[in-house]
Amino acid sequence: MNTIQVRTSSRDEMMDITRKVQQAVEESGVQEGIVYIMSAHTTAGITINENADPDVKTDMLQRLADVYPWEDPKDRHMEGNTAAHLKTSTTGASQVVIISGGRLVLGTWQGIYFCEFDGPRSRNVHVKILHG
Amino acid sequence: MNTIQVRTSSRDEMMDITRKVQQAVEESGVQEGIVYIMSAHTTAGITINENADPDVKTDMLQRLADVYPWEDPKDRHMEGNTAAHLKTSTTGASQVVIISGGRLVLGTWQGIYFCEFDGPRSRNVHVKILHG
Amino acid sequence: MNTIQVRTSSRDEMMDITRKVQQAVEESGVQEGIVYIMSAHTTAGITINENADPDVKTDMLQRLADVYPWEDPKDRHMEGNTAAHLKTSTTGASQVVIISGGRLVLGTWQGIYFCEFDGPRSRNVHVKILHG
Repeated sequence: MNTIQVRTSSRDEMMDITRKVQQAVEESGVQEGIVYIMSAHTTAGITINENADPDVKTDMLQRLADVYPWEDPKDRHMEGNTAAHLKTSTTGASQVVIISGGRLVLGTWQGIYFCEFDGPRSRNVHVKILHG
Repeated sequence: MNTIQVRTSSRDEMMDITRKVQQAVEESGVQEGIVYIMSAHTTAGITINENADPDVKTDMLQRLADVYPWEDPKDRHMEGNTAAHLKTSTTGASQVVIISGGRLVLGTWQGIYFCEFDGPRSRNVHVKILHG
Repeated sequence: MNTIQVRTSSRDEMMDITRKVQQAVEESGVQEGIVYIMSAHTTAGITINENADPDVKTDMLQRLADVYPWEDPKDRHMEGNTAAHLKTSTTGASQVVIISGGRLVLGTWQGIYFCEFDGPRSRNVHVKILHG
């Protein structure tokens, strides 16, 4: 298991970590298998989405903020970041990608994103590779 | 790794691919393990949900369209399919199912669905089986 | 594969099953690998989220009920639990956790939750462990 450290720079942010995951796969020497990418946090998730137009990230973060507004008078959690917990369970804490020929099997437009929902912070992403 | 090709026929559509995944499992000969089902796209996901009443699919697509409306004046993405990207990250790009005795371990009402959110299109679904 | 049986006590409920999953891992003797936690149902999911302040669970269930209200005049599904199906596809039917040194690799605040969205009911959660 490897741990990738990321440093986010705003409250909501989608950071492309595809290259770091690919690098971990290459260092493992695994040619065929599966890689798991896992956030170690409850206010930051992982998703797979578009890697081309950066406006997709902007729109996604805006839409998620519309669905789960930062402030909600019904919230009880004193820390005030309930929305970040919801966004994390919506994207998911982890993603999985197939490895074939030593490469991540991703569609043309697919990138792996670390999704910060309560930054800026230093964060850990665990990467686990299974041969098979 | 197998790739299942699907052809969707409307913008939003949940297509039951359980039999195709079961077929891939049978062809692999794996009796105990795990199967990963992965969309190769950023505007189409995979989910596991009800396989009995087709109204569940209709309701799910309607509810997702209410939460993530197709048009939003705040969207910047020129392609105009931001909602499809959100729906994909909500359902997830992939699902995993346990294999036992050569069969998918699914509850009585569980089916595996390819979720088209920006069709109609030809799409690819990767299926990867791990023995263990 | 193990099956954990849980008994929920209200319509919406997040039940911490981390200890039960850790116990299954210990009984397997697997030191390094992956564990899959899967709901066998279409109106109950699995998520990973905060294990400290119980108000997070209350807020999450309230926010999900706001996004997917129990009654919607557009719903067609006669059973009347369409919202539960949506919540299940949002959290996901399963989660995966890394095993290292015989222990679940979870962040300080991460717990594994069985998410009941149409209880109270008796429910099954499948646990599958892969060595690797």
